[in-house]
Amino acid sequence: MTHVHTRSEIHLNLFATACGHHAAAWRAPDSAVERIGAIEYWEQLAQLAERGCLDAFFLADGQALGPGSAPVRYFDPLTTLAAVARATERIGLVATISSTFWTPFPAARMLASLDHLSGGRAGVNVVTSMTDAEARNHGMDRLPGREQRYARAEEFIVAMQGLWDSWEDGAVRADRDGAYLDAARIHPVDHRGRYFEVAGPLTVPRSPQGRPVVLQAGASEPGRALAARYAEGIYAVAWDAQAGRRYRADLRRRVAAAGRNPDDVVVMPGLVTEVASTEREARARRAELDALLPVAESLRQLSFFVGQDASDWELDAPVPELPPVEEFTGPVGRYATVLRMIETRKPTVRELLGLLAAGGGHATLIGTPEQVAETMLNWVDSGAADGFNLMPPTLPGSLEDVVEQLVPELQRRGRFRREYRETTLRERWSRE
Amino acid sequence: MTHVHTRSEIHLNLFATACGHHAAAWRAPDSAVERIGAIEYWEQLAQLAERGCLDAFFLADGQALGPGSAPVRYFDPLTTLAAVARATERIGLVATISSTFWTPFPAARMLASLDHLSGGRAGVNVVTSMTDAEARNHGMDRLPGREQRYARAEEFIVAMQGLWDSWEDGAVRADRDGAYLDAARIHPVDHRGRYFEVAGPLTVPRSPQGRPVVLQAGASEPGRALAARYAEGIYAVAWDAQAGRRYRADLRRRVAAAGRNPDDVVVMPGLVTEVASTEREARARRAELDALLPVAESLRQLSFFVGQDASDWELDAPVPELPPVEEFTGPVGRYATVLRMIETRKPTVRELLGLLAAGGGHATLIGTPEQVAETMLNWVDSGAADGFNLMPPTLPGSLEDVVEQLVPELQRRGRFRREYRETTLRERWSRE
Repeated sequence: MTHVHTRSEIHLNLFATACGHHAAAWRAPDSAVERIGAIEYWEQLAQLAERGCLDAFFLADGQALGPGSAPVRYFDPLTTLAAVARATERIGLVATISSTFWTPFPAARMLASLDHLSGGRAGVNVVTSMTDAEARNHGMDRLPGREQRYARAEEFIVAMQGLWDSWEDGAVRADRDGAYLDAARIHPVDHRGRYFEVAGPLTVPRSPQGRPVVLQAGASEPGRALAARYAEGIYAVAWDAQAGRRYRADLRRRVAAAGRNPDDVVVMPGLVTEVASTEREARARRAELDALLPVAESLRQLSFFVGQDASDWELDAPVPELPPVEEFTGPVGRYATVLRMIETRKPTVRELLGLLAAGGGHATLIGTPEQVAETMLNWVDSGAADGFNLMPPTLPGSLEDVVEQLVPELQRRGRFRREYRETTLRERWSRE
Repeated sequence: MTHVHTRSEIHLNLFATACGHHAAAWRAPDSAVERIGAIEYWEQLAQLAERGCLDAFFLADGQALGPGSAPVRYFDPLTTLAAVARATERIGLVATISSTFWTPFPAARMLASLDHLSGGRAGVNVVTSMTDAEARNHGMDRLPGREQRYARAEEFIVAMQGLWDSWEDGAVRADRDGAYLDAARIHPVDHRGRYFEVAGPLTVPRSPQGRPVVLQAGASEPGRALAARYAEGIYAVAWDAQAGRRYRADLRRRVAAAGRNPDDVVVMPGLVTEVASTEREARARRAELDALLPVAESLRQLSFFVGQDASDWELDAPVPELPPVEEFTGPVGRYATVLRMIETRKPTVRELLGLLAAGGGHATLIGTPEQVAETMLNWVDSGAADGFNLMPPTLPGSLEDVVEQLVPELQRRGRFRREYRETTLRERWSRE
């Protein structure tokens, strides 16, 4: 029961990182690595995305310094997006918040504030976090188990929704001869759950969207179950259209089973693009980037992914044959993706390092604007996606290519907006 | 051992609230009550304060909707100040954070981000919160006791400082042929205390100030003890210069006993001013504002403050004689202030309601710029203050009067800066 997307326009977010999603992007001679500590840099990324009429500017988050040597982020998402809100006018603003470490009251309050500050453009990507290092910055020895994290995530969303709904429209009367507030339109929340107790009401009057838009990226069983019940936008992982179709069909089934309309959920797989006026140029540019990868470090990472020593693999030869996934004893998800990468792309070892270095298991399209747009629309028209969460390998470079080449190609085909019509992010994502 | 302030220039913060510190300010026909939900309004307040070269723009905070009918705030302080940082260039930005409800990692991280965003202008006013209603929004049935709140506040500051110090200057190498980070300059925190466990390091590189400036407002015994050990700026409460001198002398003694230089701590009592070209006009303007107070509500509040039914007191007669503080069984601090107000100002009942309605027990000066400046400088020169936390009864109105009349008068006397010299808030508050 794959549902084929019938709307003409697709959705595109910018998943913003410091220097781009390729692990070696910051090493490029013209990278912005010296500017990522300036808020102006992030504002300019958002302005560039807004020039391309992208749906939303999305910031991931982590609560501990990663082991990698590449710069991923700098400031926290909420203060960054408050600044970006004032530097932009129409683009959506999505902050990632960990329900494992935050509590509902401050989260709901800051998101409501961001929704006010941006005139109704705020979204929240609720994540459950991934590492013990993050837990150790928040008074825990290790990360709680997945089931517990997702149970808490659900309660976190429910409590935030209760707080957002605690003020009705019109609760602020500002009647100079009477009361400032209409107490009858402000309600307690009295949430008493397993993880949180919140009396409410919120201290912030109802924001333009009422509830900021909720996104989710869960791929696991409890992640999908949570997304089905609450997510309005989904950041998915799909290496190819087949995986995309399988995921989206499953998700839509679950959304319907949860009593919601599947068309109210926008599924956006991550997508790494490299576009240039010729395919050859696009490939060359990507090869240049791959050549900047510190090989020893990348091979160490690959060895871990494939469960065998890859340190003496010949870089420019095809990847040696690997045992089937059934025989693999390490983390299966990543290994299965590596096998699919090898099966579908037949990369050299160096190319495989590059594929893993930019977006990991996310879809990767390299070619002319026509080629990349064609494939993207094939994904959408075959039910593999409603749009994409763009993960430019370099920033601002690859985003400029998106805005100047890919978006115009999609617009020529009548498949992407030429200007913003809606005021709020929710309106942008709802099927009218 | 009252230390007389010998530096020529005084310090002035703007304590920003929605419509001003007078409880009836929002009722005035020209109040900004319809604009307080627009971030532009708050940006403009900060820009106006910056035009007057004020030291810092200070936002208080509360974690529950108050019982009062007047609008006090709107958004949360951190997203507001991130926006304000981008709308201003030199003024300090002080966010209030409750150590009773926050944990050190997210607080240190967002404050470090704000310090980056503002180029080194961030400060944090650490409070321990005051009401059970706030506690009930954070999973507690009631507010922990004062001793416990202050013990937690101390640990909160220590853990934040550890996180802020976890990155040395120069830890970001951005060496394209080597590493992005210099791991030898990034250190774990490994804080394990009674209230918090934080492994560290922070995820944000060291900010311009290293540590954002710490402010404190404690008036109680544990509050003063905490301020003595950590505060760089103190928001004090003093109804008159005598109370100011007593407080400041005590604080400076404690600071010295804690092994710090008392000159490194800026003591700023709250100050409500009403300035106009004649004293008569200033008084008339204040009387107009007082006349907007809903009398029944104000008398109910006064009845509570004085522990007897004040509902039939004659409004334009002097306040009836009240028993001495020793005989009072309710909350003593406020009652003592009411007695001092009556003793020093001999107000009518209506005037007393007005004094209580704007700033409560804080100093209140009404008159010409010359009169008000004269009294302010007397406070500073007699050791009662290093400057003031301005609490304009109306906003932006009274702030315009400060910027256009009071500040120029202080400048004429050589007692206030005519332009900003320093880049960071800490430089502005340190004695060179």
